[in-house]
Amino acid sequence: MDQERFRRQLDFILEIDKEKNIFRQTHLSNGGRREDDAEHAWHLAVMTFLLAEYSNQKIDVAKTMVMTLIHDIVEIDAGDTYAYDAEAKKTEKAREQAAADRIFGLLPEDQNRKLRQLWEEFNAYETAEAKFAHVMDNFQPMLLNNSNSGGDWREHGIRRSQTEKRNEKTPEGSAAIWDYMKKILDANVASGSLIDG
Amino acid sequence: MDQERFRRQLDFILEIDKEKNIFRQTHLSNGGRREDDAEHAWHLAVMTFLLAEYSNQKIDVAKTMVMTLIHDIVEIDAGDTYAYDAEAKKTEKAREQAAADRIFGLLPEDQNRKLRQLWEEFNAYETAEAKFAHVMDNFQPMLLNNSNSGGDWREHGIRRSQTEKRNEKTPEGSAAIWDYMKKILDANVASGSLIDG
Repeated sequence: MDQERFRRQLDFILEIDKEKNIFRQTHLSNGGRREDDAEHAWHLAVMTFLLAEYSNQKIDVAKTMVMTLIHDIVEIDAGDTYAYDAEAKKTEKAREQAAADRIFGLLPEDQNRKLRQLWEEFNAYETAEAKFAHVMDNFQPMLLNNSNSGGDWREHGIRRSQTEKRNEKTPEGSAAIWDYMKKILDANVASGSLIDG
Repeated sequence: MDQERFRRQLDFILEIDKEKNIFRQTHLSNGGRREDDAEHAWHLAVMTFLLAEYSNQKIDVAKTMVMTLIHDIVEIDAGDTYAYDAEAKKTEKAREQAAADRIFGLLPEDQNRKLRQLWEEFNAYETAEAKFAHVMDNFQPMLLNNSNSGGDWREHGIRRSQTEKRNEKTPEGSAAIWDYMKKILDANVASGSLIDG
């Protein structure tokens, strides 16, 4: 065993423990507390394994799972930027790139490159795996929020058009899941949880 | 899309959200709160991806990752049984089998079979993947606990021999990682966090 290599791997592994302290705007089902990034990533990975059959294009399921597992690690430094916070969105990219340099940089060079590349691929939103990972990333909070009668949308006064804008590329990842998501939006507009228009 | 199949998948996906409310005895690094099962499973999956090179036998990394992601889902019904709670350990198996019937049973039959088989394989502790997943399952809380000066061991008055008993098969999964784990035990005995003998 290369002790220096192992030490770097363990430094990274201990560092990412902090992801469990980054809380999102989404609340757990049954009106629970806010969800943290590690729990969210776990949920996306399991969902990827179970729902891959609905991807428009065939995907490498294992690669997509790793992508979902690591996609929010940068938030340890950069914090969670709420999807509908226009001001914070402006600086998000620079904050996250610096975080990726530092955090993935803890790893041995080959693993740093591997995870960094997966994270960049996720953000570039071009490959079949990145598109499906984003479907999961948008569908999961919608499922939780819907199970809580749209409470997160009500809290932030979100409009249907904002959710549609956020999901602009969702049909490219999974037309089938997007069809279902639209039904959730319909129901939440009808119940007044989501502002129409 | 088979609507009934999709509905069953979503029922399962929403049900396992409850794993985020199952708290373990392990505390997060930096003296944090207790860790929940979903965070723990996320951590194990990332660790599996990064540390697979230390497995004694070559493993299917993706399969092992899925195994770690789902290994604690039964605790939604059965609760977390502390590794050193001898009384609770007696009924653990029956409680967990009933939980597996109910929770994996929410899924469409093919996926129920697939996850159930992975979970049974993990518990049987015989394949290379199961052994490595168990190494991760034992190493991760030890890393967190060690980063907290062995606080979890002190809280429960744990003896070194108990940790060794728990890790009886760890060397079969990864001799290299077990060598490192023994150094952690040495240091925590030396500091008085772990009772010698």
